[in-house]
Amino acid sequence: MASVAPDSQFGMCLPDTAREWVMAARPDGPIRSEDFALVSRPLPCPGPGQFVVRTLFLSLAPVMRQYMIDGAGIEAPLEIGDVIHGRGVGQVVLSANPSFKVGDLVHGKLGWREYGLSDGSPEQMMYRFQAPDLPASTALGILGVTGFSAYVGLFDIARPQVGETVLVTGAAGGVGSIAGQLARIAGARAVGLAGGQAKCDVLTGRLGFDAALDYRKQGLVEALCAAAPDGIDVIFDNVGGEVLDSALGLINRHARIVSCGRISQYIDGPSHALANWWKIGEQCARMEGFFIYEHRHRFAEAEARMAEWIRAGKLTWLEDILQGFDQMPAALARLFEQHNLGKQLVHVAEPLQLENGNK
Amino acid sequence: MASVAPDSQFGMCLPDTAREWVMAARPDGPIRSEDFALVSRPLPCPGPGQFVVRTLFLSLAPVMRQYMIDGAGIEAPLEIGDVIHGRGVGQVVLSANPSFKVGDLVHGKLGWREYGLSDGSPEQMMYRFQAPDLPASTALGILGVTGFSAYVGLFDIARPQVGETVLVTGAAGGVGSIAGQLARIAGARAVGLAGGQAKCDVLTGRLGFDAALDYRKQGLVEALCAAAPDGIDVIFDNVGGEVLDSALGLINRHARIVSCGRISQYIDGPSHALANWWKIGEQCARMEGFFIYEHRHRFAEAEARMAEWIRAGKLTWLEDILQGFDQMPAALARLFEQHNLGKQLVHVAEPLQLENGNK
Repeated sequence: MASVAPDSQFGMCLPDTAREWVMAARPDGPIRSEDFALVSRPLPCPGPGQFVVRTLFLSLAPVMRQYMIDGAGIEAPLEIGDVIHGRGVGQVVLSANPSFKVGDLVHGKLGWREYGLSDGSPEQMMYRFQAPDLPASTALGILGVTGFSAYVGLFDIARPQVGETVLVTGAAGGVGSIAGQLARIAGARAVGLAGGQAKCDVLTGRLGFDAALDYRKQGLVEALCAAAPDGIDVIFDNVGGEVLDSALGLINRHARIVSCGRISQYIDGPSHALANWWKIGEQCARMEGFFIYEHRHRFAEAEARMAEWIRAGKLTWLEDILQGFDQMPAALARLFEQHNLGKQLVHVAEPLQLENGNK
Repeated sequence: MASVAPDSQFGMCLPDTAREWVMAARPDGPIRSEDFALVSRPLPCPGPGQFVVRTLFLSLAPVMRQYMIDGAGIEAPLEIGDVIHGRGVGQVVLSANPSFKVGDLVHGKLGWREYGLSDGSPEQMMYRFQAPDLPASTALGILGVTGFSAYVGLFDIARPQVGETVLVTGAAGGVGSIAGQLARIAGARAVGLAGGQAKCDVLTGRLGFDAALDYRKQGLVEALCAAAPDGIDVIFDNVGGEVLDSALGLINRHARIVSCGRISQYIDGPSHALANWWKIGEQCARMEGFFIYEHRHRFAEAEARMAEWIRAGKLTWLEDILQGFDQMPAALARLFEQHNLGKQLVHVAEPLQLENGNK
């Protein structure tokens, strides 16, 4: 099929079939490999306005488990046999769409596929990668929706002021590791909570957090008091549950709590009832959730400013990359086992080299 | 002493002594009469810039118990022997302050006193009553901080849209009874929760709520679903605890929860842990507290617009008035026993008649 494609300089290199991960069973509790099945399908052929993307990296996020169970945000629940939803970065290898040329790097909703068909429609949220001087994988992390979530959550919702204290929960995760660095750029004190001393060392070392605490150690509240002696002005929360509750007890007047994620509550459902909720009213605080795709008008600014900060050496990122498309279910499981350090990705393939040497 | 006052046309009518309620013991659990003592003191004499106010009505609010225990907002805790804090409306009867003339009606922090001394300073938050065509008691309710709390909480924080559903908890209370009417004026559907069918009947009858539910009846969640078939867009919460939790379970996307009061949690301290807190994040909702005195720049607009709505017959108010200064502790207890219907006041005295008949 690929040989009839209207525009490709990769024709010779493309396979006849490509693999996809589909849902074999609905998850119930922890991620199991039996919930997934790897199937082969013929390489798609682009019709008018369509193009084929070769997946280079795929992104993993806790919400993917939710897609498989009962949907989330704008996504309807998956049915058995559906390809798992997910974002990726890839290379256009066949194109009948003048806006997406062969060789372009794009990121968007590729799904768990080695090769995917797109028409560049808004539903697929396909964007051209804007920072060719930086690694393509950043399009799924710091320069993608992960980074934009940190940017919008921190700057638009929390709005930290110089000298304030920003506590980031899940601070070694994809969003959290960026949110803490952005808090420092805003002139705030960044305190991170993460699981284990090794992660904490990365936060205060490579990422420049002012303090980092292992939330699994005894005496979290006392440790928080010591790390945030002036109280907590912003909680950038990726965890929820007990960790959030401990932090809420220490919020200052007019604190802002950004409810970005609730990794502690996803597997067994919401289980922890929040004792310190009343602090929100008492401290004239604000707790707010957001859905990043409702803030698309902010993506261009976020991408441009964060790329500049990266180039200026003010901002860096953590990636945790598993090698090979067959690792997708294992990579998802890592998130819930909290084994990942930074953004969890799977490296699926290298880009093809243009035959005419353009790239 | 009063006879030396620099400006009074009431000299002959004024007593030599006046009574005050002071804190005799710190409350512990429900309000007890033993926590209060009635003392007599000489009538104060205004020095330069000062004036004496004869209390006409005093306002009761749940926060007063908090003042007695450990302070609240900008108020330090009371000490044994201190006069209880509280707002009132009164008549200037002696004045050495050109901005406050004898006969003027003023409202502000009079304290639990029959006669009080003021210098009109910002700390006492003394305002001239702006709606002489309406009853003076409204300065403590709908046209005072009570009404302003409803106005600011609803219009500035919740910002209901036409056709949305606004749930008011504690809807038969001072703030709640106004918030629900304001929601209707904004074009929203107003659903009230109150204790007992009699209060509910007043909400849907006199106050025009679209629906009212007795929160003490079994099956609150089912009843809420029926009364708010399109879900809940705004919770104007005066109650907290279980009632808030039930409502949170039914919030729509982008819901706003105004944390105005927590009457269910004041006596025994915060006791209910919030099971449905995660809905705030999931639904991209916002929960926010506020301190009304941080919104003073909005008071003039709130007072003027609500007075206009009253005159136009679009807005009314509920007052629950006990007669006599000796009723103050009992009036405070009524709030926690939920016996009050609307704003709880005590009628302390009638205004004096000016000897020259100006007023």
